[in-house]
Amino acid sequence: MLPQSPSRRNYERSSGLFDRACAVIPGGIYGHAAPALVAPQASPYYAKRAQGCRYWDVDGNEFIDFLCGYGLVVLGYQHPEVEEAADRQRRDGDCFNHPGPVMVDLAEKMVDMIDFADWAVFGKNGSDMTTWAIQVAREHTRRKKILMIEGAYHGIGAWCTPGTGGLIEEDREHVHSFRWNDMDSFDELLNRFATDAAGVIITPYHHPLFYDCEFPNNGFLQSIQKKCRQHGIVLILDDIRAGFRLHLGGSHRYFDFEPDMACYSKAMGNGYGISATVGRAELRRAASRVFLTGGFWNGAVAMAAAHATLRILERDGVPQRLHDVGQTLCAGLTARAESHGLQIRISGPPALPFITFANESNLHRSQHFASETVNRGVFFHPHHNWFLCAAHGPSEIDQTLDVASEAFASVKKTFGD
Amino acid sequence: MLPQSPSRRNYERSSGLFDRACAVIPGGIYGHAAPALVAPQASPYYAKRAQGCRYWDVDGNEFIDFLCGYGLVVLGYQHPEVEEAADRQRRDGDCFNHPGPVMVDLAEKMVDMIDFADWAVFGKNGSDMTTWAIQVAREHTRRKKILMIEGAYHGIGAWCTPGTGGLIEEDREHVHSFRWNDMDSFDELLNRFATDAAGVIITPYHHPLFYDCEFPNNGFLQSIQKKCRQHGIVLILDDIRAGFRLHLGGSHRYFDFEPDMACYSKAMGNGYGISATVGRAELRRAASRVFLTGGFWNGAVAMAAAHATLRILERDGVPQRLHDVGQTLCAGLTARAESHGLQIRISGPPALPFITFANESNLHRSQHFASETVNRGVFFHPHHNWFLCAAHGPSEIDQTLDVASEAFASVKKTFGD
Repeated sequence: MLPQSPSRRNYERSSGLFDRACAVIPGGIYGHAAPALVAPQASPYYAKRAQGCRYWDVDGNEFIDFLCGYGLVVLGYQHPEVEEAADRQRRDGDCFNHPGPVMVDLAEKMVDMIDFADWAVFGKNGSDMTTWAIQVAREHTRRKKILMIEGAYHGIGAWCTPGTGGLIEEDREHVHSFRWNDMDSFDELLNRFATDAAGVIITPYHHPLFYDCEFPNNGFLQSIQKKCRQHGIVLILDDIRAGFRLHLGGSHRYFDFEPDMACYSKAMGNGYGISATVGRAELRRAASRVFLTGGFWNGAVAMAAAHATLRILERDGVPQRLHDVGQTLCAGLTARAESHGLQIRISGPPALPFITFANESNLHRSQHFASETVNRGVFFHPHHNWFLCAAHGPSEIDQTLDVASEAFASVKKTFGD
Repeated sequence: MLPQSPSRRNYERSSGLFDRACAVIPGGIYGHAAPALVAPQASPYYAKRAQGCRYWDVDGNEFIDFLCGYGLVVLGYQHPEVEEAADRQRRDGDCFNHPGPVMVDLAEKMVDMIDFADWAVFGKNGSDMTTWAIQVAREHTRRKKILMIEGAYHGIGAWCTPGTGGLIEEDREHVHSFRWNDMDSFDELLNRFATDAAGVIITPYHHPLFYDCEFPNNGFLQSIQKKCRQHGIVLILDDIRAGFRLHLGGSHRYFDFEPDMACYSKAMGNGYGISATVGRAELRRAASRVFLTGGFWNGAVAMAAAHATLRILERDGVPQRLHDVGQTLCAGLTARAESHGLQIRISGPPALPFITFANESNLHRSQHFASETVNRGVFFHPHHNWFLCAAHGPSEIDQTLDVASEAFASVKKTFGD
């Protein structure tokens, strides 16, 4: 017998706030958290507080969180050691006329952890770093062309934003796309631009918006690396989404290749705003010639939090833990789906799984499924990869799988397969 | 008799950290805090802690601070009410899957304070906002051209950065400059681009790098406003440096004109990382069409700090206070300089004064002067405008003027005039 749908959760305060927001903010909530991009009316719009792997919305609804601030949180919300490190710095201060000593500690830590890295710089946001990195590639090579993967997300720089508003054709005149795992399409660009290409920017695996993730085919990244070296093109790894979740040395170690520069952000501060780029020695001079600054970028609190986070990630072997918990979750979901006669498709690494239903391409089942789990206290995003964190334990996974089972039953009942 | 130079302050730990930094960070410290841009060897490189209007460097040297984190701090470092508001939010959390209710409160507050504002959005950094604003202007007008003032600083976007590395000519193909207070040079651009111009971006007064500030001539800003309206061009005010320091309603009120959009950052968070753009109702649709997001941009702690800061700025009438204290400082400096037979030139508003020596253009006296005050515990930047904050009281100004007098004596002794 199918479980009965529980009565819908109450999002009255979320709705009230959203109405107020719509009066004074274009769209009410913009960007990645915009309700239209999540599951309108089926999930909260405003969060009240968070702890470990759980959060509470403004209506008092509790959720086990599998989005973790879109990946900003890797150890769990309010991790005591990270908060203690941040508090210690905060008692002294955050943004001064000069950086704090922790900037040096953090740069040393990153150069130490990341094998090819000779230097590091810091920003506040992923987009800050990817946009700066392509400029460094242009400065180093004195060339213009940037090659990127079709459909990859590298932030909101005009050269790469997935948005369409406000752009002019000159923004992308020298940005050209090739297809993931399609070496022919890369070679085609290389034939046209071998001597004009400044940089290739690539994610460690393909995680496009709304579509299944794709791992690199054997040799794909290695061939790109080899051809970049051969033609003097700077290979930039955008490791903002997966960095330090798959491998403590950066995701290129997980996939066994070596970029010339790499950009990080999400996991490194456990919720404190920071981003970083590291690079090879050859690029140091160019890096020092591309102006990079921001009022708050030397903020010592986020750097102290990042330094603590990186130490804990290492000490506790967090990537392995995320992998193991993610595998348990994914295997459990597959089994529960099958028990209801449903086929799900899981792509991406277990620590950041992306889940769709095998026999559909329009995401309707995904939206229904997520809306049903959210209604039962498990926050799954319907069409963005999820994020595991170190605070997800066996009991949360058990609870999650029970909820997922009920949600699969509802999908089966609604869609038939 | 001239006062004797005190023995130079010890910056041993700063130097040691800087040496370590140079090994792992291109240039050691980059951006606006780079030692080469301040006063190399004559001031500290790393800060340890700050409180009120004072900070201590890593060698234990104490300074009365007239830079205030390059203007990020307006009420004084570690202002108890701002910290309490931030702490209260932090106990709940900062970056979630959704914004916190404080985002709505803050947007309402800004729309309430700023007369022409119908909506607000938030970022983390000034550059985020100026770059987004020109895109909104392009989206709204479906035109390409951006007109800006020669030598104005609007951040590190490729279209405007003062840096030269990593740029390609397409970055600025549609960005054209006119001269401050030179209506002819504006009209010239207007003649060429009246129907191609998407936006004019302007600061409320001219505060170029390394040069004296210039107030608008009578009618300059008003004429630009009028002609923008006439030709359907979006007038963007970059109020990042001066915003809320001159007038609680934004600096356009201080200079009596009205833009279509305005960008703020520095003062609004009293050191917490936040920036904002507000705009007129007509631009709301375009604003909602230019993708704007960042991992940490919905962070509730900085928004709570900003909401508290804006309330305190209003309650305590801080702009008037900054003006008064700034005037006391500037008048005192002029008198002390004269008493040593020196002429100084003060430009910009008293709350953000820029000071040079009347009979030089190479800043050598400024550098010497700042280096002498820094050595005596008063942090003046040699060639960036200073920032007053609400924590600067009469006793700090007295102490500062005594130090300045000794530094003027040293300038006189070294340069003769």
